[in-house]
Amino acid sequence: MTDTYRRILLAARPHGLVDGATLRLDATAAVPDPGEGQAVVRVSHLSIDPTIRTWMDDAPGYLPPIGIGEVVRSGGLGEVVASRSDALQVGDTVVGMLGWQEYSLVTGGDGSTTVVPPGLDPAVVLGVLGVTGMTAYFGITDVGGVAEGDTVVVSGAAGATGSVAGQLARLRGAERVVGIAGTPEKCAWLTGELGFDDAIDYRVEDVAARLRATCPGGIDVFFDNVGGAILDACLANLALRARVVLCGAISQYNEDRPVGPRNYLNLIVTRSRMEGFLILDYLERFPGAQLEMARWVAEGRIHHREHVVEGLERAGEALNLLFSGGNTGKVVLAL
Amino acid sequence: MTDTYRRILLAARPHGLVDGATLRLDATAAVPDPGEGQAVVRVSHLSIDPTIRTWMDDAPGYLPPIGIGEVVRSGGLGEVVASRSDALQVGDTVVGMLGWQEYSLVTGGDGSTTVVPPGLDPAVVLGVLGVTGMTAYFGITDVGGVAEGDTVVVSGAAGATGSVAGQLARLRGAERVVGIAGTPEKCAWLTGELGFDDAIDYRVEDVAARLRATCPGGIDVFFDNVGGAILDACLANLALRARVVLCGAISQYNEDRPVGPRNYLNLIVTRSRMEGFLILDYLERFPGAQLEMARWVAEGRIHHREHVVEGLERAGEALNLLFSGGNTGKVVLAL
Repeated sequence: MTDTYRRILLAARPHGLVDGATLRLDATAAVPDPGEGQAVVRVSHLSIDPTIRTWMDDAPGYLPPIGIGEVVRSGGLGEVVASRSDALQVGDTVVGMLGWQEYSLVTGGDGSTTVVPPGLDPAVVLGVLGVTGMTAYFGITDVGGVAEGDTVVVSGAAGATGSVAGQLARLRGAERVVGIAGTPEKCAWLTGELGFDDAIDYRVEDVAARLRATCPGGIDVFFDNVGGAILDACLANLALRARVVLCGAISQYNEDRPVGPRNYLNLIVTRSRMEGFLILDYLERFPGAQLEMARWVAEGRIHHREHVVEGLERAGEALNLLFSGGNTGKVVLAL
Repeated sequence: MTDTYRRILLAARPHGLVDGATLRLDATAAVPDPGEGQAVVRVSHLSIDPTIRTWMDDAPGYLPPIGIGEVVRSGGLGEVVASRSDALQVGDTVVGMLGWQEYSLVTGGDGSTTVVPPGLDPAVVLGVLGVTGMTAYFGITDVGGVAEGDTVVVSGAAGATGSVAGQLARLRGAERVVGIAGTPEKCAWLTGELGFDDAIDYRVEDVAARLRATCPGGIDVFFDNVGGAILDACLANLALRARVVLCGAISQYNEDRPVGPRNYLNLIVTRSRMEGFLILDYLERFPGAQLEMARWVAEGRIHHREHVVEGLERAGEALNLLFSGGNTGKVVLAL
């Protein structure tokens, strides 16, 4: 007997947010049999990240664009249900690039799929202990070089990466941590449970003026998830020898013609640097960082929140949440 | 007897290029007598640099804006004609921030004015051995970290700093040095006398396409004097872990509303950094760098050219040359 499964294909390249024309739900493919060295994973949770939107554009990037008619590329978590790989046993919980689909064919032993310990909350595995949390970790520690006494500002601060980045900055000795987010509730979460010193609601406040007031000595490290006007406001408020950590630009991913930071010349005035990074370059250092992060989570020093959306058919909607600001914390799709 | 002297005051803030309304030639001030610790310098040569245009704007910068009614701030060279400072003797040739004026009152012994050895060409002192050459030196060596095998691209490459930067990159081991300039004559100078591997005429060529072809492995170090569309073209052609050295942005200094680099997100894709610097931070290291530079000049390994304009009254015209591209090499105003 051959079962079919559901998967979401890229039907057309989006302009702006993903809509009905972008995605096609296909239910005709047969669940594959694993070839030699392969395994089949039943996907239970998908990691919904802004970067997925960038893969939908036909533009050069750090990974090839998703092809028209291909399954949407995505990190995810699931259980091995069939295996011809020594590295993957039936019953193992694994994470990897599983895609927006109910079943995924993976290769064992090449590092593309990782077995995770049983009993962990899938949303935590994909979030604070996953690529999301690791992005915050290496962005703050390595790229930003946050040190004792720094003033650190985070944009998209109530998002999955931003919320962890701000807390990590504090654990690395930052004297002042300020978040920029889009609702009073998010700001209250940042200054309350997460312990940020201040939070700016960019939808109603003058971000540049508030930054001047709340960071009187200037910003030493700006961890940017947003780009656009918020990046410009931060560039206008840098301290000397500041570091701008480019993690992403959710304000720009849905624009056909992105806007560059007009205030970039303030990098000269303040002798500062703006640097991009990709978490793919840090895979070898994940185990140590994950151990440290897991300890902080257990000790209650890193708080996290997940926003779970149910149903594969809602994947596009879940992705759009990241750009409308409808989420707080990590967006996970439960299948 | 009290002599008067000529000086150029900032009469109004310019919009775009300096024009008749911007500057006022004043001939009413009396040549000052030096106070205790001071000296009077008769200015013979002024260093005409793009940064002077930025000081004319009422905008925050690394130095305060020039006030309306103040002498235009400028580096220059001259001879001490009266002194009550032990550090400065009558007859000494000095360089410092002398301003657009025939006489300048300076303070001795505080590092603001430096005595230079006799017999050197003033244009060389202000150019390749001065702030201009030092900017190229520390930008290439320290900020860019140019190393063996790098592909280095320089914009404004026929200008005072760019022409030296490209040659220094070669001396630091760069495998490929490409310049971007604005006329066939400038490009021929770069690939001829200066030994650049290639030169792109941005006024008639498609810069991004030419960069793709002439730097097939991508750009490791981009030394930017220009900003705007040229910066974007280079950002689109970076190698992995590239360094974009922000020296200046002559395409933007005359714009009321500067344009940011749309392609800045390629810093993420390529894990690259963009960093600004100011030569003021390297003053202590000038002597060693000047010695090295002087040796290379003497050995014919660094070539340089000066564009001398005669007459204090032509200072504004000389400054505008930098933005119209009318100069090759260092612009010096001889009084």
